[in-house]
Amino acid sequence: MKAEIIAIGTEILLGEIIDTNSAYIAQRLPELGIDLFYKSVVGDNMGRIVETFERAWGRSDVIFCTGGLGPTDDDMTREGIARVLGEEPHVDPALETRLRAWFDGRGYPMPESNIKQAWLIPSARAIDNPRGTAPGWWVERDGRIIICMPGVPPEMERMWLKEVRPELEKRSTSEVLVTRTIKTVGIGEGTVDEMARPLYGTPGIGIGTYARADGVHLRIGAKAATREEAWAKIRPVEEEMERIFGSAIWGRDEDTLEGYIADQMHARKTTLAVMESCTGGLLANTLTDVPGASGYFVGGYVTYATQQKIDLGVPGDVITEYGVVSPETARAMAEAARRTSGADFGVGITGVAGPDPEDGIPPGTVHVAVATPEGGTHSLSMTMNQGRQAVKRRAVTTALLLLRRALLGEAR
Amino acid sequence: MKAEIIAIGTEILLGEIIDTNSAYIAQRLPELGIDLFYKSVVGDNMGRIVETFERAWGRSDVIFCTGGLGPTDDDMTREGIARVLGEEPHVDPALETRLRAWFDGRGYPMPESNIKQAWLIPSARAIDNPRGTAPGWWVERDGRIIICMPGVPPEMERMWLKEVRPELEKRSTSEVLVTRTIKTVGIGEGTVDEMARPLYGTPGIGIGTYARADGVHLRIGAKAATREEAWAKIRPVEEEMERIFGSAIWGRDEDTLEGYIADQMHARKTTLAVMESCTGGLLANTLTDVPGASGYFVGGYVTYATQQKIDLGVPGDVITEYGVVSPETARAMAEAARRTSGADFGVGITGVAGPDPEDGIPPGTVHVAVATPEGGTHSLSMTMNQGRQAVKRRAVTTALLLLRRALLGEAR
Repeated sequence: MKAEIIAIGTEILLGEIIDTNSAYIAQRLPELGIDLFYKSVVGDNMGRIVETFERAWGRSDVIFCTGGLGPTDDDMTREGIARVLGEEPHVDPALETRLRAWFDGRGYPMPESNIKQAWLIPSARAIDNPRGTAPGWWVERDGRIIICMPGVPPEMERMWLKEVRPELEKRSTSEVLVTRTIKTVGIGEGTVDEMARPLYGTPGIGIGTYARADGVHLRIGAKAATREEAWAKIRPVEEEMERIFGSAIWGRDEDTLEGYIADQMHARKTTLAVMESCTGGLLANTLTDVPGASGYFVGGYVTYATQQKIDLGVPGDVITEYGVVSPETARAMAEAARRTSGADFGVGITGVAGPDPEDGIPPGTVHVAVATPEGGTHSLSMTMNQGRQAVKRRAVTTALLLLRRALLGEAR
Repeated sequence: MKAEIIAIGTEILLGEIIDTNSAYIAQRLPELGIDLFYKSVVGDNMGRIVETFERAWGRSDVIFCTGGLGPTDDDMTREGIARVLGEEPHVDPALETRLRAWFDGRGYPMPESNIKQAWLIPSARAIDNPRGTAPGWWVERDGRIIICMPGVPPEMERMWLKEVRPELEKRSTSEVLVTRTIKTVGIGEGTVDEMARPLYGTPGIGIGTYARADGVHLRIGAKAATREEAWAKIRPVEEEMERIFGSAIWGRDEDTLEGYIADQMHARKTTLAVMESCTGGLLANTLTDVPGASGYFVGGYVTYATQQKIDLGVPGDVITEYGVVSPETARAMAEAARRTSGADFGVGITGVAGPDPEDGIPPGTVHVAVATPEGGTHSLSMTMNQGRQAVKRRAVTTALLLLRRALLGEAR
């Protein structure tokens, strides 16, 4: 099945809103056996909307579109599709009743312009949208499908999960593509590639390597008539990779480093505290993005001022002797985070986020350290300078990777 | 001048990479008087690349494209354009020399596949790219232009700023559009709209209102032959808005709330410390995204565990009497942040980020407070639940807005 995605809206065309819906949909098509060939964006302009749908209707089996389902004059998706198919919109009584009930339930009258949201054409049925006033449209004629979803991401995502995907799954006749991503760390891309090479010839399997901020990812892909058959092809390859890469594998698919740390900390019933300066709270913020982080994360100290570090337990003479930005101070911060908070593990980060040097130390210089309950403290240093926020992000990834090694007893 | 943007790459098509280049370019076209009509994404497939360029060549005066300029077989942008124009690529000796020098300078031999990056066609000239090996292409024929830039954002952005924009500026004959965004806070969108209405009829001026996370934005737009003339139209309207909205205006154009706070703190030579729990470091992280934040930001305490709050100065009996998630505890946290750190201002945030309730308090409940050097402490509470990370972001915005009001002496 050949597909394309059309995002509708002047704000998206002009770059005022980044279109995340198209990526959301695109990522979910392979597992349905749907091949995506084009994505396009068109503004709120009837002529160009019609032109775009006409071309799509001529070349694709299924067209996903988002946006332009609101109640205002700018919302032209319904009218555009009606014109392309040469059909007349009418107010659907059931949709109108539901729409009016929605407004009644919120205690204000329905503006009459909203009635557009109760429109249908003969080839369209409505797709339920409990999160908003705009139902979607499922248009089907001449063996082709147009699926219109709202532009508001939470509304679109619910509609995808509850309505669109299940219906597409039922109809899927072509082969499905299943992928498994294996996330490794500590080995360079070239070496990973070499180590995985014996598996490259496996029949029916595709393997790719990707260098990412959190290590090298290996992606195994398999096509088959059903998801189960595809998994049956993937599983032996995955097991072989586990044998080859061992503890260099830290996660799979959607796993994040902070999620890995949370799982490990929960499983071991250990706790963590952090003391960070140049990352300014990003480490604590990343760790606490994981639901349930309060089960192991005691707290963090963002010690921007030197006196703060001392007040929270970093020996003043370490700072005087080695400087604020030094491996020794990072280690003292990790130890102080543990001691002051009473947590089992402590992390320390000190460095220069930039854009300017500090005390002659170039921006992008960062030292991270992890203090363990066994008394050992490990540190490592990095230099990279691609801007203040990139330095902060990279420093946090480095700290999470060092913490992982310490948890595994692999840190030096 | 009618324009369109084409992003090339299977990773972008499949949503594995979010395409930020197209938004970057789109945002910068109005000031050049260029009208953008379409954006599209196409994978690394010669047939579809050719089809997409053919259509664009038939309907647009200028085509911006990013990606597909690398050295591998997957990089087909150059070949695709050559086919559409019916021209033959050849190796350009000057480009080849520069390319080989690039590899020599890094001390490794050039893979022969890289020679593609020295290709030109008769209608193309190279666009300099000191940040990478892929020069851009400026293709011009029959009154139409194709501008190819690399897909790597820092390379693309430099090429845009140093090469492409200056050239387009020289050629611009149509009217330019200049916009000024005025950012207000504390007044609802309907009221802002009503207050600004007397200005809506101003000749040659367009005004729009937009509700955003950090308040209501007003955008003034003016078209004119030159940028100076457009500014001359905008300026009196902006002055009138300043009169109408007074201190409800907190910023313009690219201004951020955290940048506003930094400017105010620097100007007053005052300092700040924060104590946050449910936001988990995001407030400190946001404040420290501004370069030079160390000039006023003393530090932050991410007090996830209740004992941490007490250790850092929150009276235990406040927590016992009112609960950890309460306006009283937020106020005590703001005061403790000031007192413990010695900073002039303190901010406290406590709440339930979710997804689950805590002690019967629903997720999305957040209390923020600001303690001032004059001894007053202000607080406010919010409820919203659109997921853990959205709650964290909204709580931080609320805290920054309250801090702004405290700085202006407007907090109750």
